[in-house]
Amino acid sequence: MAVEAPIRFGILGCAEIARKLSRAINLAPNAELCAVASRSLDKAKAFAAANGFPSHAKIYGSYDALLDDPDIDAVYAPLPTSLHLYWAVLAAKKNKHLLLEKPVALNVSEFDAILDAVESSGVQLMDGTMWMHHARTPAMKDFLSDADRFGQLKTVHACFSFAADSDFLKNDIRVKPDLDGLGALGDAGWYCIRSILWAANFELPKTVIALPGAVLNDAGVILACGASLHWEDGKSATLHCSFLSNLTMDITATGTKGTLHVNDFIIPFQEKEAYFSTGTKTGFDELVTGWLPQPSKQVITTDLPQEARMVREFANLVRAIKNGSKPETKWPTISRKTQLVLDAVKASIDKGFKPVEVVY
Amino acid sequence: MAVEAPIRFGILGCAEIARKLSRAINLAPNAELCAVASRSLDKAKAFAAANGFPSHAKIYGSYDALLDDPDIDAVYAPLPTSLHLYWAVLAAKKNKHLLLEKPVALNVSEFDAILDAVESSGVQLMDGTMWMHHARTPAMKDFLSDADRFGQLKTVHACFSFAADSDFLKNDIRVKPDLDGLGALGDAGWYCIRSILWAANFELPKTVIALPGAVLNDAGVILACGASLHWEDGKSATLHCSFLSNLTMDITATGTKGTLHVNDFIIPFQEKEAYFSTGTKTGFDELVTGWLPQPSKQVITTDLPQEARMVREFANLVRAIKNGSKPETKWPTISRKTQLVLDAVKASIDKGFKPVEVVY
Repeated sequence: MAVEAPIRFGILGCAEIARKLSRAINLAPNAELCAVASRSLDKAKAFAAANGFPSHAKIYGSYDALLDDPDIDAVYAPLPTSLHLYWAVLAAKKNKHLLLEKPVALNVSEFDAILDAVESSGVQLMDGTMWMHHARTPAMKDFLSDADRFGQLKTVHACFSFAADSDFLKNDIRVKPDLDGLGALGDAGWYCIRSILWAANFELPKTVIALPGAVLNDAGVILACGASLHWEDGKSATLHCSFLSNLTMDITATGTKGTLHVNDFIIPFQEKEAYFSTGTKTGFDELVTGWLPQPSKQVITTDLPQEARMVREFANLVRAIKNGSKPETKWPTISRKTQLVLDAVKASIDKGFKPVEVVY
Repeated sequence: MAVEAPIRFGILGCAEIARKLSRAINLAPNAELCAVASRSLDKAKAFAAANGFPSHAKIYGSYDALLDDPDIDAVYAPLPTSLHLYWAVLAAKKNKHLLLEKPVALNVSEFDAILDAVESSGVQLMDGTMWMHHARTPAMKDFLSDADRFGQLKTVHACFSFAADSDFLKNDIRVKPDLDGLGALGDAGWYCIRSILWAANFELPKTVIALPGAVLNDAGVILACGASLHWEDGKSATLHCSFLSNLTMDITATGTKGTLHVNDFIIPFQEKEAYFSTGTKTGFDELVTGWLPQPSKQVITTDLPQEARMVREFANLVRAIKNGSKPETKWPTISRKTQLVLDAVKASIDKGFKPVEVVY
């Protein structure tokens, strides 16, 4: 079998996160860094030079020009959320497969417009939630899916906070209503919601309630908030996301027979090795002076960083489409569910922390 | 200096947990197991024989008889919560110092009646929340109190669940409305609330809201519930307590500069060594592919099990009173605050998950 040509990537914009993705595209065996576009040609040149672009990579002074390049298969779009609707739709219309940063849109109706464009063109859409692609993630999922080791899911708690500095809190796009207007909910909260849905097999909750005490900046952008999610069958989840607390990223999932803990789910502590803790039918010794059995640590070593695995997976899907397959609907479906719940948390905050029904 | 005589303990009832406390009283250097009472003399005899009571220990066939014994300084009362009011008040009136199991009462007004009796008699009251006395607890508190390592407290999440078997769910006193009518909230939830208040320096929240989806049994006793707590200054906390999920007992506290994790706060995994994890100003490496610095594990070795340290501390306070000091008010004060918040969670559930103001 002939080796197939790598999928040719262009990057829209020179966001900080694009540096990590440039490396990931270089690391992925089936992907190639072919172009970068910025509204400033100089900025794009400097970005390419600093981030390992090959000498033949094209440098564009506009996103349009990159999207018009017939030699680009796929784009990575780390743009401010308010620009997703326009550029994602245009990219799809130009037949570019689309690796889109999270949150995928300002709300689900915008995302549905993106989905329409993507479906019309038959291109692949995947969001940039890297941890979904870590080798640890299916290992954790195996545990959660195990009727003997974990049982039935009862509760999930997820949190993601980091302590933004004063410059971030004044100037970052994530605190600007016209750029990433969903603030900490769109950024950190996205991951919490995704992790909860992931643990719940992407079954949507029936009701979402934001917890009182959401912190907004003067422009009305969320800097910290919490929510609880409730399913028909009695499962529940809580989440907390914040720009105002020290870096913390936990999933705790409890089932009838087991417990999962992971404290670095979004960015593992180290790149080459990651772990999580599992307990099954944990109980106490006879006098209740210790645990029997105790939880244990599961260690996962990785071949490639999670972001390179994401690129590899995405490029595999693009390759399959080039070879006649249909786009994989799993990824846009879970993007949409994540956005739906995110919208419900936002709506609950806007309604004064009233319950909001989630309607698919 | 002459060695002072140990404090002489009597135990009211032969509850399962009294076995652990009998061992603890034997282990504590300043305490002595002197009596046990049960409504069944045979049961009390068997209990004393099985739990290391010295041969001179007295065996009583009624609680009254034990309380009338002038040679008993202090009683440990692991009675069903519904009996606390009667027996704790009587014990105080009989001038017995009182180590009272949690929850301390069915509600704060009952506890206030107990406090009145205790204050009138000048005896010491302490509740049986053992983990407060572990050597790890002040070490964790040092971290939380450190302006540089932890900063200002922003959020706490606490959970305690265990998977009760069908016999427990049918027959245990903790599922019976006339015995431990507060169910999982009074049992597991007590620890969660205590841990949250502990992390918040026992500052009471302004508002408590139970989360929807509390599970009650046919008799109306809580089997699982959650709540969020909200302070004036924006701090918040969530808790989940349950008899219906696998054993899990976490505190996660995030501050502006640090994060604390502990996953065995109530009963440490092992008796002789316990740990917790701390992160300070944790962040990412340059490309956001790992953490820098990473959290670290703090290991604490213990001289005595936490329950023996509790007995030792309690007996020290009793000894001080015998030597002329006043009772230590710290312990009943935090018992009362814990009960107040517990009452608020219960009231919120009873009101259909409406916010309840906590009034001291």
